[in-house]
Amino acid sequence: MSTGGEQRKIGLIGLGLMGRPMGMNLLKAGYSLTVWNRTPSRADELVAAGATLAKTPREVGAACDVLITMVSDPPALESVLWGQDGQKDGALDGLKTGSIYIDSSTVSPALVKKIATACQGRGIRFLDAPVTGGDWGAREGNLVFMIGGDAETLREVEPILKVMGKKLFHLGPNGAGQTIKLAMNAILALQVGAVAEAIGLVTKAGLAGEQLLEVLQASMARSGLIDLKAPLMLKGDYKPSFPLRLMHKDLGLALDLGNQLGVALPTTAAAREVYSYVKGEAKEDLDYSGVMRFWKK
Amino acid sequence: MSTGGEQRKIGLIGLGLMGRPMGMNLLKAGYSLTVWNRTPSRADELVAAGATLAKTPREVGAACDVLITMVSDPPALESVLWGQDGQKDGALDGLKTGSIYIDSSTVSPALVKKIATACQGRGIRFLDAPVTGGDWGAREGNLVFMIGGDAETLREVEPILKVMGKKLFHLGPNGAGQTIKLAMNAILALQVGAVAEAIGLVTKAGLAGEQLLEVLQASMARSGLIDLKAPLMLKGDYKPSFPLRLMHKDLGLALDLGNQLGVALPTTAAAREVYSYVKGEAKEDLDYSGVMRFWKK
Amino acid sequence: MSTGGEQRKIGLIGLGLMGRPMGMNLLKAGYSLTVWNRTPSRADELVAAGATLAKTPREVGAACDVLITMVSDPPALESVLWGQDGQKDGALDGLKTGSIYIDSSTVSPALVKKIATACQGRGIRFLDAPVTGGDWGAREGNLVFMIGGDAETLREVEPILKVMGKKLFHLGPNGAGQTIKLAMNAILALQVGAVAEAIGLVTKAGLAGEQLLEVLQASMARSGLIDLKAPLMLKGDYKPSFPLRLMHKDLGLALDLGNQLGVALPTTAAAREVYSYVKGEAKEDLDYSGVMRFWKK
Amino acid sequence: MSTGGEQRKIGLIGLGLMGRPMGMNLLKAGYSLTVWNRTPSRADELVAAGATLAKTPREVGAACDVLITMVSDPPALESVLWGQDGQKDGALDGLKTGSIYIDSSTVSPALVKKIATACQGRGIRFLDAPVTGGDWGAREGNLVFMIGGDAETLREVEPILKVMGKKLFHLGPNGAGQTIKLAMNAILALQVGAVAEAIGLVTKAGLAGEQLLEVLQASMARSGLIDLKAPLMLKGDYKPSFPLRLMHKDLGLALDLGNQLGVALPTTAAAREVYSYVKGEAKEDLDYSGVMRFWKK
Repeated sequence: MSTGGEQRKIGLIGLGLMGRPMGMNLLKAGYSLTVWNRTPSRADELVAAGATLAKTPREVGAACDVLITMVSDPPALESVLWGQDGQKDGALDGLKTGSIYIDSSTVSPALVKKIATACQGRGIRFLDAPVTGGDWGAREGNLVFMIGGDAETLREVEPILKVMGKKLFHLGPNGAGQTIKLAMNAILALQVGAVAEAIGLVTKAGLAGEQLLEVLQASMARSGLIDLKAPLMLKGDYKPSFPLRLMHKDLGLALDLGNQLGVALPTTAAAREVYSYVKGEAKEDLDYSGVMRFWKK
Repeated sequence: MSTGGEQRKIGLIGLGLMGRPMGMNLLKAGYSLTVWNRTPSRADELVAAGATLAKTPREVGAACDVLITMVSDPPALESVLWGQDGQKDGALDGLKTGSIYIDSSTVSPALVKKIATACQGRGIRFLDAPVTGGDWGAREGNLVFMIGGDAETLREVEPILKVMGKKLFHLGPNGAGQTIKLAMNAILALQVGAVAEAIGLVTKAGLAGEQLLEVLQASMARSGLIDLKAPLMLKGDYKPSFPLRLMHKDLGLALDLGNQLGVALPTTAAAREVYSYVKGEAKEDLDYSGVMRFWKK
Repeated sequence: MSTGGEQRKIGLIGLGLMGRPMGMNLLKAGYSLTVWNRTPSRADELVAAGATLAKTPREVGAACDVLITMVSDPPALESVLWGQDGQKDGALDGLKTGSIYIDSSTVSPALVKKIATACQGRGIRFLDAPVTGGDWGAREGNLVFMIGGDAETLREVEPILKVMGKKLFHLGPNGAGQTIKLAMNAILALQVGAVAEAIGLVTKAGLAGEQLLEVLQASMARSGLIDLKAPLMLKGDYKPSFPLRLMHKDLGLALDLGNQLGVALPTTAAAREVYSYVKGEAKEDLDYSGVMRFWKK
Repeated sequence: MSTGGEQRKIGLIGLGLMGRPMGMNLLKAGYSLTVWNRTPSRADELVAAGATLAKTPREVGAACDVLITMVSDPPALESVLWGQDGQKDGALDGLKTGSIYIDSSTVSPALVKKIATACQGRGIRFLDAPVTGGDWGAREGNLVFMIGGDAETLREVEPILKVMGKKLFHLGPNGAGQTIKLAMNAILALQVGAVAEAIGLVTKAGLAGEQLLEVLQASMARSGLIDLKAPLMLKGDYKPSFPLRLMHKDLGLALDLGNQLGVALPTTAAAREVYSYVKGEAKEDLDYSGVMRFWKK
């Protein structure tokens, strides 16, 4: 699968549902890969496939030309970048001048700007490049990247990103990628939440959710997302593809952004509380389509 | 265009954005058509094409074997069916025993049940059969019918409905059509509202709505509806295809149903107030995608 | 208890939690009283105290100079005023020219206007005069009346209303009473709902609701309503004083009014769905402070 | 004014609308006071009255036995406690072992816990003690303190707190003060927001807000807060007593807490977006009663 000509050394921090298959695709493409994860056992599969496991985020930074992070939330990202409690073991402490850092986590545009400033001070080129496409997209190398930052830097890492995703959208300066990502996830959460609410309504009225779905699939509102999620919602099958707790977090980040800017987002705010309710009641990890549980216990 | 063999006499009440093209398709298919509209001039085009204009809803009822109503809201429907102030000029007063009555307006399941009871008492067979597809679907004979009522009755009028729409969904007893329709419209309103909210967010963050749309169209959330409405929202072109005031009314009917049944619909409720805000501020008639105005004045 | 000088014959329709004690106070003040209720047994206590039980609303109308209605919702009021299915047994059919009709139910301003028109056509003077104060206020003759209609008419019935309430607010033409009433009830529902939400929050954070209440009672947000309801909410004692299903209905009427006028009421709309949720889950009749159940099951 | 017997040296950081009068009361009570503020000119009045102006938060920490902070939000508090960019000029760097630190800002319980841990590591005793009562309460020494932390520590500083407030509520361990404070502010914001929404409704219906207020003041929903704010809302007088941007921030903190805990707060979430809307539209600084502007421009 490897073409042999690849020379950039890549670092990858964050080996969850998304990070692992992204790393696997990088290895398959012939890149040398150094990885780190808070729970080291998550690296086993990648190490077996040829990746090197570092002891700290700093070691990953020092070992690579291009660092990619893919962690679950802003505090996790701050911790891998700046280290814990002044221990100087953060990835930013390791990265060399002239290296490139790509964050694919979903975090706040405010944190992106803080990172951009820190990188600028150290001569590191930085892109915010969150993704959409779920774990399936990560496995298939079919992610969509939403990118903020310098066009020249993007050109340099394009071959690397193309290993993981087919579509790269360059959307503006640092922060633009995250802003569009948060808006996109609000749309996804509301599209799924709307179907859940509608199923809740027709079911209580004595009809079968399947009947609504049949009509929905013949309508202009049909989307790939609805085709994917609605049947699972009718079955009550909420095996996490994109976990509800992360979607809930992203809705919070979208609302934080809206509230900083003074943009009212009444519908997103209402939906977030429904996701919060389900998160609070659920014992196990659910896909975000599990928002259905607010209506169908 | 007519096949000649059609014999059923059809009555059509309500000649708005939807009713006129529906009537035109019935005429083209060779049906004899008697029509009525509160503002009689709206019938001109149909009369020129061969329809007979009645003086009262009752006259329409008396002149037809199959009555179709397509009016804007529950009070309008009550008024055409039962007449004004005990004047006995309502359509139900005219309909013959054995005739069939199809309501394609969007009204409450509660009103559907009241109509069903009234029809049963007079030996009239009744279907609730609201549609989706907009004025474009009405012109192209490409509506989707959501139908509640007796299967045998539906079989009888199927050739008539097929003149106006390609897809007929038989969803259950009387009320089922309206229930699914209200749930569908809540989904449409929330899908468009979510895109508006997201455009509002990214725009205030300094990005162009077009960038969001580009990513959206590469995502699983893409739908025919978004492809149709979002570009118009970016342009601020709100020429009514499905008027905001009617979508706002339908959201109210969906919430009425939910509240009768004790199903909480928090997101629909939030969205309805945004539509209400825009309705209250707008001077002119807007398409429901004009909900965008809450963010972009 | 009677002062002897009272001569007006009063009719009272609707003998629920509010109507019964209102009737009792009218009897105690020496008025002659004719009553009707859908469930006749609810009249027993009043009949034992001297009231006459009529067979139909029309009979009540015919027997009185001043009619008072106190029923639960708009359909109930329409039914007692216009009768069932054209049977001509409604109260309006019985009322004499020159009589006065006072509606103390909480209904929509739209229905008030329909009633006002009907009364005007029959030479009946009409006041909309909904109340606040709960069943306790009704028993103590301590209701607050919010009144819309003609000042002269109000002057005439003031002695009667003063038997039931200490405070009469004349707020404008017909509809003004109901409009203010709906706004008032939205405030009550939100004030109680806010306390419930806050108790839900601090409880989940591991603190006792009593601690919040202690601070609340030392704050400027303290109100008689909070002093009354919050301790019951902490105990989970939801014996109906003002039933949740009626508050839920009133929130719906307030939202209907807002949506007709194009006034967005986002907070009221959110609260209504919480009340709806609890109404849908509850097996028994609850006070509206039972909205607490959304958080504390 | 001083009683002479006071010996504790007090530090005060944050000299805004609240901090200045709190400091003045401490000086009047005879305490020696060292102060710091980001904008030093805000200290002029206190310095004229005898306070010492420090150059850094660290200097304040080093100069006092009891430190009080009263800043506007969590980032401001983090910055004064831990200093800017590793400069070691934060207050925590200055505080002596055995000293007491009281935070009266409104921040997140999460930050409170982080501070508690940091203090514990340095032998500093810490209380979270946010206040309610507004700038008026601060001037009159009439604040209400909501306190989390150790009872013994509280006993020690009680004389100091009593100079600024009459009521001290000890509510539990660290974090309890902030949790109750956030719940309280959500109640205040919703109580005022509900009145605004109701005024918006009756006004659009053609009535005067004064009429609603008259009835409201005769009702059980009457509160000191409504008596204070509603007349100003009717006049459109939004001179900041408690600024809207701070109330908006506190609603965000309450929602953050709810969402961390998985407690749905649908009404608070709806209200927050209304406050956000007004914040986004306003050119000047408004009192939080300026939420009225969503309806009355």
